[in-house]
Amino acid sequence: MADLRQLAEFGRYESGVNRRALTPEDIAARAWLKDRMQQAGLDARIDGVGSVIGITPGATRYIVVGSHTDTVPKGGWLDGAMGVIFGLEVARAFVESGTGGDIGIQVMSFNDEEGRFAGLMGSSVFCGLKTLEDVIGMRADDNTTLASALEAAGYADQAVAKIDPATHIAYLEPHIEQGPLLESKNKKIGIVTEIVGAERCQIRFLGQADHAGTTPMAMRHDTAAALYAYGVRFAEFCRTRGAENTVWNLGNVGLEPGAYNVVTPESTLYLEYRDGSSEILRRIREIIPVLAAEICESHNVEYELSDGVRAQPAAMNDTLIDCIEVAAEKCGAPSLRMPSGAGHDAMLCAPIIPTGMLFVPSIGGRSHDIAEDTHEDDIILGLRVLSTVISDLIADGSPLINQTH
Amino acid sequence: MADLRQLAEFGRYESGVNRRALTPEDIAARAWLKDRMQQAGLDARIDGVGSVIGITPGATRYIVVGSHTDTVPKGGWLDGAMGVIFGLEVARAFVESGTGGDIGIQVMSFNDEEGRFAGLMGSSVFCGLKTLEDVIGMRADDNTTLASALEAAGYADQAVAKIDPATHIAYLEPHIEQGPLLESKNKKIGIVTEIVGAERCQIRFLGQADHAGTTPMAMRHDTAAALYAYGVRFAEFCRTRGAENTVWNLGNVGLEPGAYNVVTPESTLYLEYRDGSSEILRRIREIIPVLAAEICESHNVEYELSDGVRAQPAAMNDTLIDCIEVAAEKCGAPSLRMPSGAGHDAMLCAPIIPTGMLFVPSIGGRSHDIAEDTHEDDIILGLRVLSTVISDLIADGSPLINQTH
Repeated sequence: MADLRQLAEFGRYESGVNRRALTPEDIAARAWLKDRMQQAGLDARIDGVGSVIGITPGATRYIVVGSHTDTVPKGGWLDGAMGVIFGLEVARAFVESGTGGDIGIQVMSFNDEEGRFAGLMGSSVFCGLKTLEDVIGMRADDNTTLASALEAAGYADQAVAKIDPATHIAYLEPHIEQGPLLESKNKKIGIVTEIVGAERCQIRFLGQADHAGTTPMAMRHDTAAALYAYGVRFAEFCRTRGAENTVWNLGNVGLEPGAYNVVTPESTLYLEYRDGSSEILRRIREIIPVLAAEICESHNVEYELSDGVRAQPAAMNDTLIDCIEVAAEKCGAPSLRMPSGAGHDAMLCAPIIPTGMLFVPSIGGRSHDIAEDTHEDDIILGLRVLSTVISDLIADGSPLINQTH
Repeated sequence: MADLRQLAEFGRYESGVNRRALTPEDIAARAWLKDRMQQAGLDARIDGVGSVIGITPGATRYIVVGSHTDTVPKGGWLDGAMGVIFGLEVARAFVESGTGGDIGIQVMSFNDEEGRFAGLMGSSVFCGLKTLEDVIGMRADDNTTLASALEAAGYADQAVAKIDPATHIAYLEPHIEQGPLLESKNKKIGIVTEIVGAERCQIRFLGQADHAGTTPMAMRHDTAAALYAYGVRFAEFCRTRGAENTVWNLGNVGLEPGAYNVVTPESTLYLEYRDGSSEILRRIREIIPVLAAEICESHNVEYELSDGVRAQPAAMNDTLIDCIEVAAEKCGAPSLRMPSGAGHDAMLCAPIIPTGMLFVPSIGGRSHDIAEDTHEDDIILGLRVLSTVISDLIADGSPLINQTH
């Protein structure tokens, strides 16, 4: 808890934290984290994309535990930070108790999960989904390139850490739930069954600017009207043709020029939808241009569609799911199997090595906000469950541990 | 035409004009206009709110002719400028021909019709609807106050011109149509029967920020979804319960924070609607909170409603309508009686003195854009009709002229 609270001082903003990746506050936090790892007896370094890595000495294979320490603007103090500090604490206990033989703990703090430059940047490179060259030119919204930010932080010359299924036995990511489910059901541990897939796209409607007083309604090419109709129709489709847990959000629009008295010639709608099933995602993606064409015809406008991120659903490892459930029971923590509606670094590790996630409850379901918080008892209980999972994995000679490569 | 083209050089922007009220370009244009009035033999001055006034000498009563020379950002070269230059040309001819006796021409260029500080500012003060004190504190979007802008232009110490029904016989405002009707019906002169009323308001929906991946749909307070529903329902109401010529526009929205992955806690929708009937306007205004309450209930959000401008419909003077129709016929110009969907300085004069407006066709109906234009032949024909109206009024001893005060 002391480490967690200390970390929250870097970029502290009221009751939350403003610590976007590779800002001065974030760089200071990384240096502090590396120091704390070394003080705990780990071999620690910061790699070429700014991810912080600490390993218990003397091992040949590792259970990887971690998350990320960067935050969204004016975000919460726990979010990814909790998972990294859980990793540090487990590794510290591991070193102190001398457990493990050839199996050690690798603590990971993946850089830029929240996407100041590119979402899931550190884990994308770690997992080999992107190369350093792929991401190095990405720019922050203040136009800083990742290349110059890494250079300025002094990370640019360091080697980049990579996932290795022969060495990395499993990845465990503890995280706050970021939703209201555990609290509303009075559960203490969420056992993630899958991280839902999330897809984004933009629809740009193109019409014509006209005077909103003098142009008869029938002669207009009003893209704002098309956008409102789309918002209603898309939600209707998802509600009736999606699954029970399908979620969607049309949380941003752009109207140009955006005036009371100008019929809007250009409107952009930003769509996001998530589901655990690739089939549902495919069904929604297919309807998007169909709805757009229908609405454009009735509104005398045209459209352009561009796809953004398309993250496939990622199933968690069944052995780890069972193991977390058993550990929660041992610790007296009521648990719930649930999907993760939010994306996490774990979604990129899951197709490569056995991956598991456990959630602790978020008060009021709040996250990505300075109001985000978790009761201290729940944080400590979450750490107990995590360390029980790791002890059990090693002690029981789990198939995950015993598999050969 | 030479004066019109010369005036368009002040603030020229590609094929249009960027000459917002009291910018350096606008101030230079006012000085030029005053000079041109003096060269035409008028007594000319710029008043305490920056309106330019020129009167033919020797008269005791005046037919007022004018409009405004300020433009919207990147606007057209004709818009209000044409009506002012028509006034100048009529007054010049008036002086040259020695017509009129005790009846003269007063040319008006009302300041800030387009609302850099406050829409219809000059005509509001001229018509006594607002005092100088009411408007002097208004700010432009660059935070300049009207007071400091008038001071810097050197207008601040001048007296403010006022409408006087005993002296001002009528107000005639020639203007481009700013819509497609004349062109589509192959007419050359639009005779305005009324300026439609226009009302504006804002609805601010208030909900809650939540993670768009982790918050079940049923637990959301999604103001963006409420806004899209409102856009569709409001249009449906206006279409089915408005009149044939009712127009509306929902041309601006604000979503906060405006992100793919945040359920939108605050959304603002900007509404404008216009009609020639006060009854229709009242009917629409009444439904606005009713729809908002219904939609808020189904979307678990709340709303705040704030009214903006509410301009009542303004009927043009019947004698002037007939007179313009006769003049158009004399000039061989096919004419059309029509409402003005756009607001004009004339709407403020109409309740005080007999007021008439005539339109010339806008190519493609374009306005408030650098693409705005009118064929030169149509401009000249419009001026002929205007000068015929004025000759007829004086020559025929119209009741407008003969009335005593």
